[in-house]
Amino acid sequence: MSRKIRMGMVGGGPGAFIGNVHRMAARLDGEIDLVCGAFSSSPEKSKQAGKELYLPEDRVYGSFQEMIEKESALPADVRMDCVSIVTPNHLHFLPAKLALENGFHVICDKPMTRTLEEALELEELTEKSGLIFALTHTYTGYPMVKQARDMVSAGTIGDVRKIYVEYPQGWLTEKVEDTDSKQAGWRVDPSKSGIAGAMGDIGTHAENLAEYITGQKISELCADLNTVVKSRVLDDDGAVLLRFDGGASGILTASQVAAGEENSLAIRIYGTKAGLEWHQMEPNSLVVKWLNKPMEIYRTGVGALSEGATAHTRVPAGHPEGYLEAFANLYRNFAKTIQARLAGQEPDPQYLDFPTVSDGVRGMKFLYKVVESGKSDVKWTSFNN
Amino acid sequence: MSRKIRMGMVGGGPGAFIGNVHRMAARLDGEIDLVCGAFSSSPEKSKQAGKELYLPEDRVYGSFQEMIEKESALPADVRMDCVSIVTPNHLHFLPAKLALENGFHVICDKPMTRTLEEALELEELTEKSGLIFALTHTYTGYPMVKQARDMVSAGTIGDVRKIYVEYPQGWLTEKVEDTDSKQAGWRVDPSKSGIAGAMGDIGTHAENLAEYITGQKISELCADLNTVVKSRVLDDDGAVLLRFDGGASGILTASQVAAGEENSLAIRIYGTKAGLEWHQMEPNSLVVKWLNKPMEIYRTGVGALSEGATAHTRVPAGHPEGYLEAFANLYRNFAKTIQARLAGQEPDPQYLDFPTVSDGVRGMKFLYKVVESGKSDVKWTSFNN
Amino acid sequence: MSRKIRMGMVGGGPGAFIGNVHRMAARLDGEIDLVCGAFSSSPEKSKQAGKELYLPEDRVYGSFQEMIEKESALPADVRMDCVSIVTPNHLHFLPAKLALENGFHVICDKPMTRTLEEALELEELTEKSGLIFALTHTYTGYPMVKQARDMVSAGTIGDVRKIYVEYPQGWLTEKVEDTDSKQAGWRVDPSKSGIAGAMGDIGTHAENLAEYITGQKISELCADLNTVVKSRVLDDDGAVLLRFDGGASGILTASQVAAGEENSLAIRIYGTKAGLEWHQMEPNSLVVKWLNKPMEIYRTGVGALSEGATAHTRVPAGHPEGYLEAFANLYRNFAKTIQARLAGQEPDPQYLDFPTVSDGVRGMKFLYKVVESGKSDVKWTSFNN
Amino acid sequence: MSRKIRMGMVGGGPGAFIGNVHRMAARLDGEIDLVCGAFSSSPEKSKQAGKELYLPEDRVYGSFQEMIEKESALPADVRMDCVSIVTPNHLHFLPAKLALENGFHVICDKPMTRTLEEALELEELTEKSGLIFALTHTYTGYPMVKQARDMVSAGTIGDVRKIYVEYPQGWLTEKVEDTDSKQAGWRVDPSKSGIAGAMGDIGTHAENLAEYITGQKISELCADLNTVVKSRVLDDDGAVLLRFDGGASGILTASQVAAGEENSLAIRIYGTKAGLEWHQMEPNSLVVKWLNKPMEIYRTGVGALSEGATAHTRVPAGHPEGYLEAFANLYRNFAKTIQARLAGQEPDPQYLDFPTVSDGVRGMKFLYKVVESGKSDVKWTSFNN
Repeated sequence: MSRKIRMGMVGGGPGAFIGNVHRMAARLDGEIDLVCGAFSSSPEKSKQAGKELYLPEDRVYGSFQEMIEKESALPADVRMDCVSIVTPNHLHFLPAKLALENGFHVICDKPMTRTLEEALELEELTEKSGLIFALTHTYTGYPMVKQARDMVSAGTIGDVRKIYVEYPQGWLTEKVEDTDSKQAGWRVDPSKSGIAGAMGDIGTHAENLAEYITGQKISELCADLNTVVKSRVLDDDGAVLLRFDGGASGILTASQVAAGEENSLAIRIYGTKAGLEWHQMEPNSLVVKWLNKPMEIYRTGVGALSEGATAHTRVPAGHPEGYLEAFANLYRNFAKTIQARLAGQEPDPQYLDFPTVSDGVRGMKFLYKVVESGKSDVKWTSFNN
Repeated sequence: MSRKIRMGMVGGGPGAFIGNVHRMAARLDGEIDLVCGAFSSSPEKSKQAGKELYLPEDRVYGSFQEMIEKESALPADVRMDCVSIVTPNHLHFLPAKLALENGFHVICDKPMTRTLEEALELEELTEKSGLIFALTHTYTGYPMVKQARDMVSAGTIGDVRKIYVEYPQGWLTEKVEDTDSKQAGWRVDPSKSGIAGAMGDIGTHAENLAEYITGQKISELCADLNTVVKSRVLDDDGAVLLRFDGGASGILTASQVAAGEENSLAIRIYGTKAGLEWHQMEPNSLVVKWLNKPMEIYRTGVGALSEGATAHTRVPAGHPEGYLEAFANLYRNFAKTIQARLAGQEPDPQYLDFPTVSDGVRGMKFLYKVVESGKSDVKWTSFNN
Repeated sequence: MSRKIRMGMVGGGPGAFIGNVHRMAARLDGEIDLVCGAFSSSPEKSKQAGKELYLPEDRVYGSFQEMIEKESALPADVRMDCVSIVTPNHLHFLPAKLALENGFHVICDKPMTRTLEEALELEELTEKSGLIFALTHTYTGYPMVKQARDMVSAGTIGDVRKIYVEYPQGWLTEKVEDTDSKQAGWRVDPSKSGIAGAMGDIGTHAENLAEYITGQKISELCADLNTVVKSRVLDDDGAVLLRFDGGASGILTASQVAAGEENSLAIRIYGTKAGLEWHQMEPNSLVVKWLNKPMEIYRTGVGALSEGATAHTRVPAGHPEGYLEAFANLYRNFAKTIQARLAGQEPDPQYLDFPTVSDGVRGMKFLYKVVESGKSDVKWTSFNN
Repeated sequence: MSRKIRMGMVGGGPGAFIGNVHRMAARLDGEIDLVCGAFSSSPEKSKQAGKELYLPEDRVYGSFQEMIEKESALPADVRMDCVSIVTPNHLHFLPAKLALENGFHVICDKPMTRTLEEALELEELTEKSGLIFALTHTYTGYPMVKQARDMVSAGTIGDVRKIYVEYPQGWLTEKVEDTDSKQAGWRVDPSKSGIAGAMGDIGTHAENLAEYITGQKISELCADLNTVVKSRVLDDDGAVLLRFDGGASGILTASQVAAGEENSLAIRIYGTKAGLEWHQMEPNSLVVKWLNKPMEIYRTGVGALSEGATAHTRVPAGHPEGYLEAFANLYRNFAKTIQARLAGQEPDPQYLDFPTVSDGVRGMKFLYKVVESGKSDVKWTSFNN
């Protein structure tokens, strides 16, 4: 018999943005209960967060180590099933490792780790443990992204030739890390963020999205990384010429100094028969541009959409679903896959549609190659996987 | 000390659409626990729904009467605090009445009742009981609707002169009630829906939105109601010329036979200084059109927005919030207001920003006047309240 | 053998806006030569305008009477073939009448005259003379308006049930007639404009567009006319409920106090199978919304469009055509029809697609009925033609 | 005293697209008379074209050589003042050279020549002769492009850091040159088109637009040129990483195999204070995105625009101006500059705002560098001018 999945959280204390996003996403479909957490490295703040979340005091911990140790000691019908990791990049690896070593499924924010070595170790641990590892590349959770992927794989637009993916943001245009932005602080600090700045924070989303929809993998790249705000160490802007293993070429851009842009991830894919266009900020529309007939706009909930799109839609057409719903699709699928595991069943294939530890490794490899290329005078850097 | 609010639900069993919407909205912010329900008039189906919602069997009831009776008998720290009513129109009144009579707060779908008499009775009961009654006119829950209201009340667009509000849908273009649509079936049946069809189902949303944003009340109207699909009894389309008590004139349209339209509620308001435009299907943008300078687009999360807009926003700019988030704003405010009551405190004024039993009465009066005008040969029908 | 058409102009002197628009439209396709003009009631200003237009001095006249008299006396291979009338409303009738009486074809701005009597007289004169009379309802000249009309008449959207046509402008929001606006001055003056203000200036465009596309004629109406800027005499805003002879209902709005609106004529038409939507400010797109499949956007020049759309398109897809091109389509058709007449041939049917004196009469009748209804306490006013 | 400019045309015979565009653009403002032409290399076809254009037979020539010779022999008050060259690329140089050598001003389509050597020779000839040479980079003729340039130069968006310019078209997605497309035929043929395909046809427009608006010049580039349709010789797609002399970086893309795209030139420019965005297919809007306040949309004709924008606008706001109007702005400025020359006066500075022979040389240099980089394994190719 099915039951709700019990989740513990690492990170997401006062002042954090993404922690609350994870919690809302986890709540939306009613398949997950947040039962415990180590919300901050400050036990005080962790307690405060736990109280605001109406958690019992004895399930609010001062560290992830304590959480994993004490939860492990709880009865099987009480203890958490999984851990959600919502800390800055450099604090993903250790809790994820410990969780996997202690038999807890993991759902983790992206990029997966600070270094590629850590990523590879998590991949190995996941495989060895047989546990479920989900990575929150949120944007593949949107119904119209599923629709795009399904149209490409069905051959609707013909052979894919050209892929433009872009991710402009403007919030680091000024040196906000010097003022008050907790979000900016760790992102521009390589000891926390890793070897890449904008490419790590948002470029990996773009890479993941392009490969997810097209099914083609980047095989060569040529990167131009820029540190536009001069005192920074990491890139805050970049562009990457791409060649894909399926024969397409493309361009990926990621910038956090594109003044005035909100969060304008977008992708355009051109095949031999048609082009596709999707914008994250208008996520319920998928534009299909045909060679010699009127363009079409596919809309969430309208007409006969793909199985993948339908399985990730909650409300009727015209009731806009947004970012939290896309995010919740990852949590829902993660939870349903755990439920199936608990029930000794195969999950519905749609529930397996979430980014995994392997996507996390690929993202890290991408970052390493982009940084390598960015420093190179040679045009093309091979990205054979 | 604050705690989560415990909620019971009436309706929302298998096949219902709006019940699940209410549940997702109630879950999103983690302030409400669904603890019990009478999900269907069929006890079997109610049990099934309860099981899918992971509720304990003894909190799943065969009728709302049973639910209210048995919950009333539970200890104070266990029993539900409030009832959510998500049934078709004709099944709002009795459970709402019984809940109020037994001391439970109520959150109810719209239009509030089937008849004006019922609405007035609920208003009286609510006032007498001192309980909290929320009505789910979802669309006023959007941040950019709050922004629009706040800009109007601050005089930003000058004196309001013209109000266009429209609500086209296309889903009743064909006679879907003859086929398989549970949603359509009761809506076209006056014994369930009430005296109005499209005007009741969506016209009241438009009326509520226009009055909410502008602060002006409709004082005269001239309605043209149409039953476009001939075999129907109720209106499936209509237009209403409006005069407002603040001097503005306007037009309200509501149609469910606007072929191809999804859920395209929109409002435009023109003052002496500027015009405002908002579309429910792109809810995070509010267009401000000035007389002699470039138009502006206010966006959720961008720049210094009004207190009302900010208090109803969850994620940073560019991460689209949608229908469920707007809906959740009503539930969050309802819950926070109950929490304040429980704590013997005044709620934050922002939490009091939800539609109440009085909005429900006004909606019913509007419907009666629209139907009266629709049958009249005289141009203007007075709507003095 | 074909030749360019020789045109004289009445009005369009210094400071006029629409006169230059007519001249640009007349020039665009190279079928018309402006050979003479009476550009102003001031002979001085007329001379000045003629000079700026590089006209020989002896073809620039001090009055339309002089122009018609002297041109009539010129040899047949020199004198003008037709007269373009671009004066304010009250100065359409006399030059048009005189032109027709002297054998000159006429192209005239709208609304056709100041009074219905004048309009009827011009209609009679046109019929009696056999001359060609074109009225510049510009907006029906757009390719995508032709496409819409052709799709409706082909039954693509099924039976038309609902027609929303709207024409909001904001330029009379303030009392600009008191300051410097030559455009505003005569439009708010009933001795020049006629019995209607906004309804005459732009409402007739909306009426013409709706009837042109749908082929249905307004048969009943209920008007709410407003004089929002209080010191004015004529309407500057209005809304009209409509019933059409083909069974559709609709709404027409026209406002010149919709603050911040530019020239936002738009129409939506809903049939039993689909809806159509067109916006004058994005004229190269026609949105088709289907019941159960993705909406389509027809674009000027893309794919197989209707014969009417194609015949009125000049450049390939993606090279936006605008207002002047639509206007030029009227002039081109007018000229081609005269050329066919000169050659003793039947014009291509596409060239006959321009508004005529009958559209002008219908527009005037519409205005009379709207004003009658606006003053009436009875809801519906019959508009049997 | 001012007079109309007399123009001869080379090219633009039956079946040509761009010839008619040039003629419409030249006509629109009434400053230019087409008085003669050599419309085709076939004298027969040239005659036919001349007849359709209502030209006297003795001014229609069988070759540009004949035209220049015979026109030179005509009296000064009859012969043409200038030559418009609208042939394929490889047929620009000789007529331009001959025209300049014989004292005729030239307006020429782009790219200016087939080879850089030819371009440099024309530049030298132009300088030596003191004649006026205009190049039809149409897109800089739009009012909102002027507005963008003027806002950048006024510092409104701060220091420019990032420039994205893109030009996707889809019309060469299939191998249309094998079928019936006269347009495609010469463009994919290096003996006619030159060393570049898509980059020459549309990439130069993008380069010209980016440098025009920002005032920065490309100083380094890294090109990825693709021949997507395999049997072709020239690029039909490409992307170029850019570095500018003012410190900005950027990306330029040009593709003619972007299936379903019409003519979707667009540019985004980010500075330290704001971002700008302009799309050729919606040319009357210029989006300005601010760091911490609502984005603005500047619209042709609305509010106080720059002098440059205003000087290139013909009709009031909301009456869309398009491609032909932008094109006509080049012809109008070219004609006005010649008129000033004839009158021995300095032209209004706004009239000098058209692309010249130097823009043509720069475009050719750009193509050579892009092709060089496309073949190179080194990442950056210097583009020092």
